[in-house]
Amino acid sequence: MMFFIHLFDYLQKESAIVLNVKYEKECEMMAKIATLITDLFEDVEFTSPKEALEAAGHTVVTIDKVGNKTVRGKKGEAKVDIDYGIEDVDPDDFDALFIPGGFSPDLLRDDDRVVAFVKSFMKANKLVFAICHGPQLLISARELEGRDVTGYKSIQVDLENAGAKFHDEPVVVCGNQLVTSRTPDDLPEFNREIVNLLKEKEFQK
Amino acid sequence: MMFFIHLFDYLQKESAIVLNVKYEKECEMMAKIATLITDLFEDVEFTSPKEALEAAGHTVVTIDKVGNKTVRGKKGEAKVDIDYGIEDVDPDDFDALFIPGGFSPDLLRDDDRVVAFVKSFMKANKLVFAICHGPQLLISARELEGRDVTGYKSIQVDLENAGAKFHDEPVVVCGNQLVTSRTPDDLPEFNREIVNLLKEKEFQK
Repeated sequence: MMFFIHLFDYLQKESAIVLNVKYEKECEMMAKIATLITDLFEDVEFTSPKEALEAAGHTVVTIDKVGNKTVRGKKGEAKVDIDYGIEDVDPDDFDALFIPGGFSPDLLRDDDRVVAFVKSFMKANKLVFAICHGPQLLISARELEGRDVTGYKSIQVDLENAGAKFHDEPVVVCGNQLVTSRTPDDLPEFNREIVNLLKEKEFQK
Repeated sequence: MMFFIHLFDYLQKESAIVLNVKYEKECEMMAKIATLITDLFEDVEFTSPKEALEAAGHTVVTIDKVGNKTVRGKKGEAKVDIDYGIEDVDPDDFDALFIPGGFSPDLLRDDDRVVAFVKSFMKANKLVFAICHGPQLLISARELEGRDVTGYKSIQVDLENAGAKFHDEPVVVCGNQLVTSRTPDDLPEFNREIVNLLKEKEFQK
């Protein structure tokens, strides 16, 4: 009888340890990712990374100038509910920043609060992912001096004038912190790098 | 009878002189203005200057990457037939360049032929008029170093990084050659300055 009681205790402890390890692993792995987005974003440049990030266990939080709204992609394929307005978020509550492309970054960069939000991620050396026209917001934050980046062809001159080193490559990872890509065609490489970088970091929830 | 013949001769000569003066005046005054435009232009930033330019006797010629098409404004208010594709035009055939804003300049600046076309007007010191996002094409042409300009707030940082001196004013006229404005609200000042500058120049047709 005592044997069974000991066996039961043993199994209970083991399973608790296993569950605990699993729980801790998930907590460490899960990142909360602030996503700056508004109307006329490049549809797939939001939906595809979001899918990759969520499949890896991360949380994608959408932020626009104001909350309580739905924004639409420029292709008309994707609709996105905005979780928060920029007034209601604190960069300290997020582990990483994601900026999809299209005309959305241009429409957001005229707002000083949005630009300050971007700047705080760069200053804190947090992970920042930007694709296509997304780096326009990093130019506005004046945080690209000496950084290796790529982006959509039309903004190459702006990136270079901002002091960045432009590379015509599908994905550029700079300082294990900043990931940039050029177009929707680069999404496989972009998604691979952002998920890999998140794996390397530990996040406390 | 001879009196009537002399009177007829006199009237004929006088009217010929009047007509000739009028014709010469028109020839001197009329400018042919190349307008770089594509979809998602800011509707009124094309229609309002076009109206002002045509009212002053000038000709507005629309140019996109390709011809034989109709483009639409981002507000859905204006449709514009494109006169020529960029392959079919020579900057030497035009007296001035006009670039309306919206997302149109961003969509055009990834085309090296369009950028070269813009550069040739700046190099030749011809009149150039750009409003809102229009100056993005001047950045791409790398022709703003030391120039006084304005433009839409979101591109202020790009203009400054391009070496331009940014002024938050309704209209900036630089070197009697380059006219820039910020938004549709500035159109009265923009239209006034571009028409005035054209008045000061003489154009041979």
